[in-house]
Amino acid sequence: MTKNFAITGVAGYVAPRHLQAIKDTGNRLVAAVDPHDSVGILDKYFFDVAYFKEFERFDRHIEKLRRGPEENRVHFVTICSPNYLHDAHIRFALRVGADALCEKPLVLNPWNCDGIKEIEQETGKRVYTVLQLRLHPAIKALKERFAKTTRKHEVNLNYVTARGKWYLYSWKGSAEQSGGLITNIGIHFFDMLIWIFGKVQHSEVHVAEPGRTSGYVELEHAKIKWRLSISRDDLPEECVKQGQTTFRSVTVDGEKVEFSEGFTNLHTRVYEETLAGRGFGIDDALPSIQLVHDLRRMTPAHERDR
Amino acid sequence: MTKNFAITGVAGYVAPRHLQAIKDTGNRLVAAVDPHDSVGILDKYFFDVAYFKEFERFDRHIEKLRRGPEENRVHFVTICSPNYLHDAHIRFALRVGADALCEKPLVLNPWNCDGIKEIEQETGKRVYTVLQLRLHPAIKALKERFAKTTRKHEVNLNYVTARGKWYLYSWKGSAEQSGGLITNIGIHFFDMLIWIFGKVQHSEVHVAEPGRTSGYVELEHAKIKWRLSISRDDLPEECVKQGQTTFRSVTVDGEKVEFSEGFTNLHTRVYEETLAGRGFGIDDALPSIQLVHDLRRMTPAHERDR
Amino acid sequence: MTKNFAITGVAGYVAPRHLQAIKDTGNRLVAAVDPHDSVGILDKYFFDVAYFKEFERFDRHIEKLRRGPEENRVHFVTICSPNYLHDAHIRFALRVGADALCEKPLVLNPWNCDGIKEIEQETGKRVYTVLQLRLHPAIKALKERFAKTTRKHEVNLNYVTARGKWYLYSWKGSAEQSGGLITNIGIHFFDMLIWIFGKVQHSEVHVAEPGRTSGYVELEHAKIKWRLSISRDDLPEECVKQGQTTFRSVTVDGEKVEFSEGFTNLHTRVYEETLAGRGFGIDDALPSIQLVHDLRRMTPAHERDR
Amino acid sequence: MTKNFAITGVAGYVAPRHLQAIKDTGNRLVAAVDPHDSVGILDKYFFDVAYFKEFERFDRHIEKLRRGPEENRVHFVTICSPNYLHDAHIRFALRVGADALCEKPLVLNPWNCDGIKEIEQETGKRVYTVLQLRLHPAIKALKERFAKTTRKHEVNLNYVTARGKWYLYSWKGSAEQSGGLITNIGIHFFDMLIWIFGKVQHSEVHVAEPGRTSGYVELEHAKIKWRLSISRDDLPEECVKQGQTTFRSVTVDGEKVEFSEGFTNLHTRVYEETLAGRGFGIDDALPSIQLVHDLRRMTPAHERDR
Repeated sequence: MTKNFAITGVAGYVAPRHLQAIKDTGNRLVAAVDPHDSVGILDKYFFDVAYFKEFERFDRHIEKLRRGPEENRVHFVTICSPNYLHDAHIRFALRVGADALCEKPLVLNPWNCDGIKEIEQETGKRVYTVLQLRLHPAIKALKERFAKTTRKHEVNLNYVTARGKWYLYSWKGSAEQSGGLITNIGIHFFDMLIWIFGKVQHSEVHVAEPGRTSGYVELEHAKIKWRLSISRDDLPEECVKQGQTTFRSVTVDGEKVEFSEGFTNLHTRVYEETLAGRGFGIDDALPSIQLVHDLRRMTPAHERDR
Repeated sequence: MTKNFAITGVAGYVAPRHLQAIKDTGNRLVAAVDPHDSVGILDKYFFDVAYFKEFERFDRHIEKLRRGPEENRVHFVTICSPNYLHDAHIRFALRVGADALCEKPLVLNPWNCDGIKEIEQETGKRVYTVLQLRLHPAIKALKERFAKTTRKHEVNLNYVTARGKWYLYSWKGSAEQSGGLITNIGIHFFDMLIWIFGKVQHSEVHVAEPGRTSGYVELEHAKIKWRLSISRDDLPEECVKQGQTTFRSVTVDGEKVEFSEGFTNLHTRVYEETLAGRGFGIDDALPSIQLVHDLRRMTPAHERDR
Repeated sequence: MTKNFAITGVAGYVAPRHLQAIKDTGNRLVAAVDPHDSVGILDKYFFDVAYFKEFERFDRHIEKLRRGPEENRVHFVTICSPNYLHDAHIRFALRVGADALCEKPLVLNPWNCDGIKEIEQETGKRVYTVLQLRLHPAIKALKERFAKTTRKHEVNLNYVTARGKWYLYSWKGSAEQSGGLITNIGIHFFDMLIWIFGKVQHSEVHVAEPGRTSGYVELEHAKIKWRLSISRDDLPEECVKQGQTTFRSVTVDGEKVEFSEGFTNLHTRVYEETLAGRGFGIDDALPSIQLVHDLRRMTPAHERDR
Repeated sequence: MTKNFAITGVAGYVAPRHLQAIKDTGNRLVAAVDPHDSVGILDKYFFDVAYFKEFERFDRHIEKLRRGPEENRVHFVTICSPNYLHDAHIRFALRVGADALCEKPLVLNPWNCDGIKEIEQETGKRVYTVLQLRLHPAIKALKERFAKTTRKHEVNLNYVTARGKWYLYSWKGSAEQSGGLITNIGIHFFDMLIWIFGKVQHSEVHVAEPGRTSGYVELEHAKIKWRLSISRDDLPEECVKQGQTTFRSVTVDGEKVEFSEGFTNLHTRVYEETLAGRGFGIDDALPSIQLVHDLRRMTPAHERDR
C-alpha cells in the first residue's frame, strides 16, 4: 500500500535525497514544513504537497489528516531538520500516530533515546534512522569479511570534505545545534566501524578544532586512528589538482578499503529496508550516539597538556 | 580588474545564476547574507566567502572591507532577496559605496525609484537590474524587426509555469512581498513587450486570482492579450503528456515567436553588459514597474461586474 | 497540592496576568517559552523558571520533567501565544499529559474544537479557557437579572479601546493570525451576551474595517447593536478630555450597565475556578467562537451594496 | 524646536526609559522597529508612531520621511537593540542623516569605534551614548571630591542584581551578542570609575563564570576590587530578607558611597544634555569599551591555574 509521508526541514541540504527515495519507492509526500520558504525543489518530485512555514500549522494539518479518511493519514514523518530538533520532531511524529524516519544523528545525546523509546511504547509507533553506509555493498562486504575475526585490526580513517567559511557560521558549525564535526560528519563512520568491529572499549580526542578533529578509538576488534576535517588545506595534493573537494580514506591493516562508488541511491535503499520492516531503530543508532557524545565531552589532548 | 561582489538572498532560488555569472565573468564573491543558513551552494562556486545570517553583521563586514585595503572593497552588491526588500538592499549597496545589481523587479512601486535615484546621485554609485530577456537573441531580433513599424500588432502572450501549493504559501504568494504573479512573473514579459512595442497606452485586468491572471494591455504598437498562470491545469495537453511544466507562447499577428532556446547564461550576459558599462538602470526598469503596479491596483473586470 | 505550570507566549501582553494568577493561587511556574527573549518580567513572579526561545527545546524539557519524579511534572500549560497558535499549543499540552489553560479566543475556527475534543478524550486531559467576564460581579448580576426573561431586550454594545498604529502591523492586525477585531476584542462581549441572553438566531456585519467594525446580532432574548473600535477618533469627547483611552458602554433597554470597576484580578478568579474543577471548557467557548467565525465570513453590508 | 525620533528595539527592556525621556523633553517619536511585535507600550507615550517588524521597512519609511517635508525628517535614532547590533544601527542612523543616541555599551569592540567615527565625519552627524551614571548627583559629587587627588584610593565594587534562569538563555547571556556580564552590566561602573579616577593602568579577571565575574583593575588614582553577579545566592542576607533583588555597594577607602537614590529619570537627563549639545560621544565611551574588551579576552586566574 502506498504510504503517505510528511517531511520536516524540506528546504535543507539533505531533503532532496529523501524526496527522491519517497518517489523511488512509490510513495507519496503530502505535507512539508520548513521555516525557510525557498522550497521550489518540491516541484521536481511531487505537486500536491501542503507546505507550511510554521510548525504549528504543519501540526494542525497532520492532525486534520489524521481525523479524516484513512487513506489520507500520514504514515511516516521524515525528519531532515537541524540535528538538535530531531528528538522533538520524532516525538511529534509518534504523537500524531506516524512512524518517524530521521536523518542521522538520530539524537544528540544518548539519554534523549530513553524518552523516545518510552513514547514508542506508549504510541505503538516506531522510530527509524538513516544509517545508509550499512547498506553500501563494499561496507557490507567488509562486515562479512571481519565477521569472525578474533584480533584487533589497525584501522585508519581519514575523511576530508572541504567546506567554505559558511559551514562554521551555519547551524552545522554550532556545537549546540549540530554536535560539531564529530557528530555531524563523524557519526557515519563511527557507526560503520562499530557495526563491523564491535563495541567501544576506549576513546580519545587529540584535536578538537571547529573545522578539524582527530583522535583514537579502540573497539573489540579494531584500533582506529581517526581524523575528520572540513578544511581545504587538509585535502591531499592530488585531490586539489583534480578539483576534488572530498577525500575519503579507510585502511584496515594498511590495506585500502575501496568504497568511492556505490553512494548513489543509498537513501532509497534505506527507505526500501524501512518499508520492508528491516529499518534501523533506536538501539541500532545508540552505540555511535554514545561514542560521539563521549568524544564531544573530552578535553582534547593538545589542550589538556598546555 | 577583478570586481568584488557581495550577495543578499544567497540561499534563494535565483542565487545560483548570479554565482555562476560572477564566476563566468572572472570576478569574485567575497560576502553573502541570508537568514536561511542552508548555503552549501556557495562551495560550488567560491570558497572564501564570508557568510552571515544577519544583515547587521553583513553590514559590519562590508564596512570593514570598505575601510581596509582598496583591493578588498566591495564593488557590487548583487541582490537576490525577496522583492519587497530590494529597495532597502539597494540603498544599503549605495550607502556602502558599491553599485547595486538587483534581480527583477527592481522595486515594487514606481515611487521607490525616486528615492534610490536620489541616493545614486548623492553617492555617485549606480543601480542596475536584470532584464535578461532584452539580451535574448530571438527577442533582440524581434525588436529590430518591429523597430520601424507604424501600426498596432496583435500580440498574444500565454505563459504557464506550473508550481506546487508551496508557491502561494511562500513569500512569492504574498502580494505584499512579491507583488503577486503580475509582478513576480509578468514583469519579464511586460518589460520585453514595452521594449519592443513602445509605451503603455491602456491596460486592463480581467482575471486576478492568486495563481492565475490575465488581461489586456495596449502599447504604441501592440494590442496585447496576456495570461499568466502557475496552475498545472492551464498547461496545454501536449505539455502534460511530455512531462513539461512550463509553456511559453508569444504570437505576433498570429505568428509564433520562437524563443524556447537561448535562455541559458542570460544572467552571465547581463553581468557582461553591466560590467562593460551597458547595464540596465532605473529608467530602463521604470515603465514595466509602472505597468505592473497599475495592473495590481485594478479591480479585475470579472469582480467588477458581479 | 501545588500545581506546576508551564507557559507559552510569556513575553506577550497578557502573560503578566497569568503569572500573577499562578502566584496568587499558590502555584508554581516551572517553564516558559517565547521566541522573543525579553522576558525579564518573569523575575517579578518566579525565579526558577526554565526559559526557552524555541518550542522544540521547551517540548524536550517538559518531556524530561514528565519522565522524572512525580512532583516535577507539569500539570498545566498556560497558553498566551498569538491566537492562531492556540490549538497547536493546546494539542501539545494534552499530548505531554497536562491540562491546557488557554487565553481567549480558545481557537479561531469552530472545527478546531472537534480535534482538540478528541484529544481530550484520548489523553484524559482537559482544555480550559479564560472567559473572565463571566466571573465579573456586575455581569453575574446581569445574568441573574435576565435569567427568567421571556422577551427580547434591546442591547447596545459600544467598545472603543484606542491603539496606536502598531496594532494593525502586529499579529493582532493580521486577520489570519488574530481573527481581527471581531475575534480578538469582540469575543469577550459576544461570549458574555450569549451567556446572558441565549443562543444566536441571526447576525449581521455592517462595517468591517481593520480598525473598526459594527453590526447586529439577535439572540434568544436580545437584539444587539454592536460596535468595536481601536480608533482614537471613536472615543467620546469626554474620554479624550480626561485622557482616557478606553470607552466601554453596554445598555440594556436603554439603561446603562455599570461595570467599569471589578476588572482587576479576574484572571486570578479564573485560575481559582479552574483549579477547583469549575473551569470553562471547550463547550463553553464554542458558541462565541462560532459567532465570531460567522461574522468574519460575512461581507459587510456597506461593501455588499456598493 | 521639536525633534523627531525613531527607535530600534522598542519591545525590549530598556525602551520605556527612552520613550519617557523623549516625551519628557517635549519631543516626538515618529517611527519604531522591533522584530518582536508586542509593542503596546508605545501607546503609553505616543500614538502616531509608524511601527515596523522588519528593519528594511523601517529603513524605507525613514528614507521616505527624509525626502519629504523638513518638519517630518528624523533627527535622532535611539538605539535599544541588543548590543551586538549597536554599531550597525548607528551606521544606519548616520547614513539616513540622523544623529544616533545609543544605549550602552556603545559598541562591543574598540575598533568598531573607528568605523563609526569615520562615518560621523563623512555625514556630519553625531553619535551619542547613554552614560547616565555620570549625571547622577552623588557620582558627580564623588568626581569633584577626587578631582585633585594625587594618590591611589582603595575601591571596592560589589554589584549583585539577581536574575532568573532566562537571563543566560536570552541574548544577554550570549557572550557574542551582549559581551557577557562584564560588558552588559559592568560597563556602567567601569565608565564611572574611569571618569572619576583616571586611566586604566592594569586589569585582571579572577572569576569569569557566565553569571558571576570578579577581578581587579588599577586606575591612575584607584585600586579597584570588582565583583558582578546575577546570582541570587550572592545577595547579602539582609537584602534577601527585605525581598530586594539588587545590591549595589561601592566603597572608597573603606567608606561607603551612598547612591541608592537618584536613579530615576537619569535617561531624561541624558536626553536633556544631549539635546543641549553636551551629550557623551564616541571618545567618552571608548576607555570603558576598551577595558571591558580587554577583560573579556583574559583567561581568568582560576582557570589559568588549574
